[in-house]
Amino acid sequence: MTGAGGAIGVFDSGVGGLTVLRALRSVLPQERFVYLGDTARLPYGTKSAASVVRYSLQCADALVARGIRCLVVACNTASASALDALRLRYPGIPVFGVIEPGAAAAVAVSRTRHIAVIGTEGTIGGGAYQAAIRRLDARVRVTALACSLFVAVAEEGWVEGPIAEAIARRYLEPIFCGGQSRAAACEVPDTLVLGCTHFPVLAAAVRAVLPDHVALVDSAATAAAAVARELPAAANPSGRGGLSWLAGVSWLATDGAARFARVSGIFLGEALRPEDVEIIDL
Amino acid sequence: MTGAGGAIGVFDSGVGGLTVLRALRSVLPQERFVYLGDTARLPYGTKSAASVVRYSLQCADALVARGIRCLVVACNTASASALDALRLRYPGIPVFGVIEPGAAAAVAVSRTRHIAVIGTEGTIGGGAYQAAIRRLDARVRVTALACSLFVAVAEEGWVEGPIAEAIARRYLEPIFCGGQSRAAACEVPDTLVLGCTHFPVLAAAVRAVLPDHVALVDSAATAAAAVARELPAAANPSGRGGLSWLAGVSWLATDGAARFARVSGIFLGEALRPEDVEIIDL
Repeated sequence: MTGAGGAIGVFDSGVGGLTVLRALRSVLPQERFVYLGDTARLPYGTKSAASVVRYSLQCADALVARGIRCLVVACNTASASALDALRLRYPGIPVFGVIEPGAAAAVAVSRTRHIAVIGTEGTIGGGAYQAAIRRLDARVRVTALACSLFVAVAEEGWVEGPIAEAIARRYLEPIFCGGQSRAAACEVPDTLVLGCTHFPVLAAAVRAVLPDHVALVDSAATAAAAVARELPAAANPSGRGGLSWLAGVSWLATDGAARFARVSGIFLGEALRPEDVEIIDL
Repeated sequence: MTGAGGAIGVFDSGVGGLTVLRALRSVLPQERFVYLGDTARLPYGTKSAASVVRYSLQCADALVARGIRCLVVACNTASASALDALRLRYPGIPVFGVIEPGAAAAVAVSRTRHIAVIGTEGTIGGGAYQAAIRRLDARVRVTALACSLFVAVAEEGWVEGPIAEAIARRYLEPIFCGGQSRAAACEVPDTLVLGCTHFPVLAAAVRAVLPDHVALVDSAATAAAAVARELPAAANPSGRGGLSWLAGVSWLATDGAARFARVSGIFLGEALRPEDVEIIDL
């Protein structure tokens, strides 16, 4: 493959990280990107930390071999487990995760200092958001919940309507109910972090079942903002004015180009063609 | 590991195959079993056929190394792709899949010769059920549909109630609606094959949204019946009279003993302890 040198490398276990790529493109429209979905081994969320570290290093190796100048770990599970190992292996390349920026945004916005975080089993069970939030403000109370079904709902494209809302209600009502009376208000989080890169596409369904006063933190958007803030501008921007922005991205996956292309439409708002996706072995 | 020699080996990409194991135990109560869930690489349903064959051979190698006398591929995706490769590698060991028995049961029960099959994307997209049914009766019309979300719903344990039924209705109503009028009756399948080993735990929710006249074929139960019919009795049965039947099974997984043990409860009706599960590398 050619043309990815100097690009921003982004990887995820599959298609969820496309929400991060989309957010990155929105704040860094002149950059070139190379996206790798490790679809042969998805999901990372149910894998052990040791496996996730090993997979993440292999993803990074493939992207670094393509000459990227910056690495974005667009996967909460990998951000929770693998950032230290990635920075150790590639000290010359800035490595960004999605957890620290989301935690910082939540701490900044919460007034009651009670924050809820939802994610996959791996992210929530590993406690990375809880730890990141408490590092920023030890007085914050964190209520964390694994919402594994959201991943499948997002990939099925059922991102709006009664089923998505019923699932959101079943997960979130136990956390956010009871906020009607003033006495109980302190018991209820005033901020919800979407701590999985799949979840931003379900934001409308989640919003529909949340009390109005609860702030929603999108970890894809906050991660992209952190990259834009800290990364020096590209020396050779893509400069693709008229084309679809998708043309400025090199697409890699480890399995299933047809499915990757089809499901990408849910996350990108515009579907790829299977022939746009290069399948690589890790 | 000791004690699995002469046992029936069963593998799946994860926990779904436990429905097959449960059905096997029900019809073969004197047998010993060794179950392998390839949890490090689940789900197989979204992987390419080449990957599924490779994984299946590795699973079989691990079970054969433990001295099994029979192999049950308790995974529709692997049954669809890997049976020939497995039989070629192990000509001395009877290898059973879950597709042929389910297809035969559906053909036997359908009067209108219109059969519906639901499964994962891999199973449905590969067309193995459709082909197996047509090999038995070329006049049968098959309506096939991927119901990927059912897997996540089953693993979350939300196997009954309004959400499971709403999801079942969204998937199945387009297939089974229109069956009220006599003119349209031939347009509607009279048989539904649960073509994924996860789906039997959702049978009640599926049944609730099906017209009464539609027969439900459980591919776990039909596969177990086929093994019982064709396999010679064990020379050294387990003979565990008083103990839980779970004690007669050796449990292997490739990742995540804690999750495997927890989710197994949904499929077995009785949960394992993490320390019951041996983690192996493939």
